[in-house]
Amino acid sequence: MKLVSFIGSGNVAWHLAPALDNTDFAVREVYSRNPAHAAALVDKLYEADVKTSLDFSDSPSNIFIIAVPDDAIQSIVQEIILPDEAILVHTSGSQPLSALGYAAIPGIGVFYPLQTFSKSKKVDFADVPIFVESENPGTEKVLLAMAKAISKNVHQVTSQERKAMHIAAVFASNFTNHMLLIAQQIMKENNLNFDWLKPLIAEMINKSISIGPEQAQTGPARRGDFEILDRHMEFLQNDEQRAEIYKVISQHIIDRYH
Amino acid sequence: MKLVSFIGSGNVAWHLAPALDNTDFAVREVYSRNPAHAAALVDKLYEADVKTSLDFSDSPSNIFIIAVPDDAIQSIVQEIILPDEAILVHTSGSQPLSALGYAAIPGIGVFYPLQTFSKSKKVDFADVPIFVESENPGTEKVLLAMAKAISKNVHQVTSQERKAMHIAAVFASNFTNHMLLIAQQIMKENNLNFDWLKPLIAEMINKSISIGPEQAQTGPARRGDFEILDRHMEFLQNDEQRAEIYKVISQHIIDRYH
Repeated sequence: MKLVSFIGSGNVAWHLAPALDNTDFAVREVYSRNPAHAAALVDKLYEADVKTSLDFSDSPSNIFIIAVPDDAIQSIVQEIILPDEAILVHTSGSQPLSALGYAAIPGIGVFYPLQTFSKSKKVDFADVPIFVESENPGTEKVLLAMAKAISKNVHQVTSQERKAMHIAAVFASNFTNHMLLIAQQIMKENNLNFDWLKPLIAEMINKSISIGPEQAQTGPARRGDFEILDRHMEFLQNDEQRAEIYKVISQHIIDRYH
Repeated sequence: MKLVSFIGSGNVAWHLAPALDNTDFAVREVYSRNPAHAAALVDKLYEADVKTSLDFSDSPSNIFIIAVPDDAIQSIVQEIILPDEAILVHTSGSQPLSALGYAAIPGIGVFYPLQTFSKSKKVDFADVPIFVESENPGTEKVLLAMAKAISKNVHQVTSQERKAMHIAAVFASNFTNHMLLIAQQIMKENNLNFDWLKPLIAEMINKSISIGPEQAQTGPARRGDFEILDRHMEFLQNDEQRAEIYKVISQHIIDRYH
């Protein structure tokens, strides 16, 4: 059995720590700048303790998982004190492996679960793709075993590939969601019910995932219907930024298909 | 029992005609510029015939449904010859009721099913929102009955409301799908598998639909993480249009939340 310590108790740790705790990678410690947050996560685990300092020199753990916002990783790495032969990983989509270089130990790696996590919503890790990276063969082996303990969907990628994937994920997830927000706002401004769009949204995503977004594309820009595009731009003219978004995406669709 | 004729045999007619044919609104005729297309749809219906002209003066039908691309509606309305007391509707999200004005009959209306249709994919009409519009009370009553015969989700909206809804649908469906296309392209260009993004996409949409897009928003722009935004822009600089899309949407998210 490997023992694991978490640095961070945010959305990723909140789901990842209990998932690991049910496997041969038992969680023993949770550190957070806010000990109350660490305590809340510890409550969900079998035998873990709250850790209030980053001095892990006496820790029983082998694996230290940094699950904090990207801009907090550097200061953690500079402060943390690890036991001998520790493995140190981060869980970020956009930070390179070298973000852990300051730790000056051989056992560094990345353990990136590609999913959107919120504390209120349960996640089934079995289907969450996990991307592992390490330049140390022993560390890589341990991280692959840890990933496979919770997911059927484990892959090895380089820092550069992970960065590309993270940008693709921003388009596929964050920007997609923002399109839904704009749709919701337009409905609201016109006293229409956002719920009316939900069957369309669900069907469109199903179609896009099953036949692929290229085949699934419909709409005035796809058809090259400039009359409708002009009328929509006219409708949107009271909100310059929204009109700009409509224009650049429509233009991109037109250029792609015509 | 009311009898229905379809003008058009594209994706909307392909699903709407068989759905109506199972109710008290039986389909008797299908007209298409391409008679082979009309024949393919007629094959899915109980007692309908292919119609090769737009002269419906001897038609047994009461209701005539124009389900053709927006830019073909006008020429149909100019050419069609209807029997006495006919009801004429179109199924477009973006055309006003007045697009049927040339027919110069009292019974004009709109019958707009808000869904994305493709011939290869079955649609359960029970959940498809249908939006009905007419200025004639008798016509309105018939259209509401026809909508309720196939859907539990029937509403009356004005031409202006329908236009706003159609624009919202473009953001929610067409633009969302285009974000998925860009994500797929980025994955492909970096030899990564688009399938790896699918659990994220499915979860994000579920979350956005259940807790609402405003609460569901995550990502570097939402966090105001300008370092990541800069790095992503740098990564995208080989494709000017794609970088522009990344920039305007990120800016809109930043302005919305910060």
